Amino acid sequence: MEVWFTEEWLPGLRISCQINSVVTRKKTKYQELCIFDTVEFGRMLVLDNVIQTTEKDEYIYHESLVHVPMFFHPHPEKVLIIGGGDGGSLREVLRHKSVKEAFMVDIDGEVIAAAKEHLPTWSSGFSDPRARLVVEDGREFLARSRSEYDVILVDSTDPVGPAEVLFQVDFYSLASRALKPGGCFAAQTESPIATPELVKNVYHRIASCFPVAKLYTAPVPSYPGGWWSFTIATFGGDPAEPTRKPDADFEGVLKYYSPEIHRRAFVLPPKIIKDLGLEYASRQYSSGKGM
Amino acid sequence: MEVWFTEEWLPGLRISCQINSVVTRKKTKYQELCIFDTVEFGRMLVLDNVIQTTEKDEYIYHESLVHVPMFFHPHPEKVLIIGGGDGGSLREVLRHKSVKEAFMVDIDGEVIAAAKEHLPTWSSGFSDPRARLVVEDGREFLARSRSEYDVILVDSTDPVGPAEVLFQVDFYSLASRALKPGGCFAAQTESPIATPELVKNVYHRIASCFPVAKLYTAPVPSYPGGWWSFTIATFGGDPAEPTRKPDADFEGVLKYYSPEIHRRAFVLPPKIIKDLGLEYASRQYSSGKGM
Repeated sequence: MEVWFTEEWLPGLRISCQINSVVTRKKTKYQELCIFDTVEFGRMLVLDNVIQTTEKDEYIYHESLVHVPMFFHPHPEKVLIIGGGDGGSLREVLRHKSVKEAFMVDIDGEVIAAAKEHLPTWSSGFSDPRARLVVEDGREFLARSRSEYDVILVDSTDPVGPAEVLFQVDFYSLASRALKPGGCFAAQTESPIATPELVKNVYHRIASCFPVAKLYTAPVPSYPGGWWSFTIATFGGDPAEPTRKPDADFEGVLKYYSPEIHRRAFVLPPKIIKDLGLEYASRQYSSGKGM
Repeated sequence: MEVWFTEEWLPGLRISCQINSVVTRKKTKYQELCIFDTVEFGRMLVLDNVIQTTEKDEYIYHESLVHVPMFFHPHPEKVLIIGGGDGGSLREVLRHKSVKEAFMVDIDGEVIAAAKEHLPTWSSGFSDPRARLVVEDGREFLARSRSEYDVILVDSTDPVGPAEVLFQVDFYSLASRALKPGGCFAAQTESPIATPELVKNVYHRIASCFPVAKLYTAPVPSYPGGWWSFTIATFGGDPAEPTRKPDADFEGVLKYYSPEIHRRAFVLPPKIIKDLGLEYASRQYSSGKGM
């Protein structure tokens, strides 16, 4: 007997994954939570019928979201992750020895509990003494902070339901205020090819709250369109250029990130630059006689 | 009523596309050919139940396959495309004014006929006086050639059925012999994340026939894994560095390619470099104190 899980990626487009077993399935206060063992993607977390993270490709998503801002910042000590209850972003943040405290604020404590029990690859950082796990609405947590964090990361679900508030100007403005001088912000900002209008809106909302905002991308096979965007925002300096490189602690650990991948992630094709209204990015391929 | 087409992307992974209409459907001598109008991808060519090319993302695939070798070559005049019956690669080749003759050799004349009738966006180059359309087995055509082409492109289906022969060392060896000195070769070489073993094998077969071979990638949402690879092979010089840049003829025409995208396409993440055995690429992120 074959069991399949199907997600409606977009209107008129579905992805179906064959399941070896349903590891857990429950209704939490906020959403329906499922963890599957799948044939192609290995272990998989699904919230409200949307694939959140899979064993096969989570390293691409988490290393992109985390290490681009973390290697842009010269010395990140205090980090805040909003969302990210599976623990993958926290795990990557804690690889940086400079980090003294890493807060992970997820609204749904049952996601954290399920990750602890069933997603050990993701949640390995939960027991790190530098980890601070908080079950609270991310926006409310952020609203109490002033000049507190070196890096703030938003590892959220799609902008429907509990995460909708995390895609608003008001929230980005709070994030800007909660950063120390020289701090930086990064968020997952959806698919530039599947939902370009959404990405455009979200990018420009972030850009309205920071002096510098740049979009970068990575391939993530289990997300709609297979190609994902992130937006990093800073108070100055070019986030496409890392200020540090991975030291010996990272030897053999990084599977997606490298300094060259960091830079490459910011290079966007002409149509995406145009569709998303990213004029800043057009300098990279226009004008100039030399190569 | 909803009509859906489903492709088995990989064992345990399926993609389903809702269809507005079946434009044409027939058994040719070699394969089953369908052209659909789909909700998400627009017009779509399907051969033997595998998505070949879609209106929404064909520009990424064709501009990657064609313009990386074409802008690496300083002055391509005579070009051979093996496969590519839809016409998308030919269209991109003919954008280069230096081209005097472009041969497109597809084994299946009914694909070419269907593209002419139903895929006008792809097949617009068929009527160009520089286009030479040939219905023949690509390997046999190539076996008669010596030092003839500046650029040879392989725009094939997957390595099963009629295209299997186009993924063998024998074929790459013929391609090497059919190139002029200074010529270059490029082929679509499948998904580095969905079928890494296959990509590894194919890459190393190509590398065994040329002094220089490099893998590059692009996101193609309608292909398994959403992330595709190409291999370019040359007799010298670094194909990651274009020798020319798009001139005024290309203004506003290119949607994916730019010189920066060209360079970016060759930057690969550590895990892919390791999985595929691409030692040459590891220089980009290892050692060295400076950034």
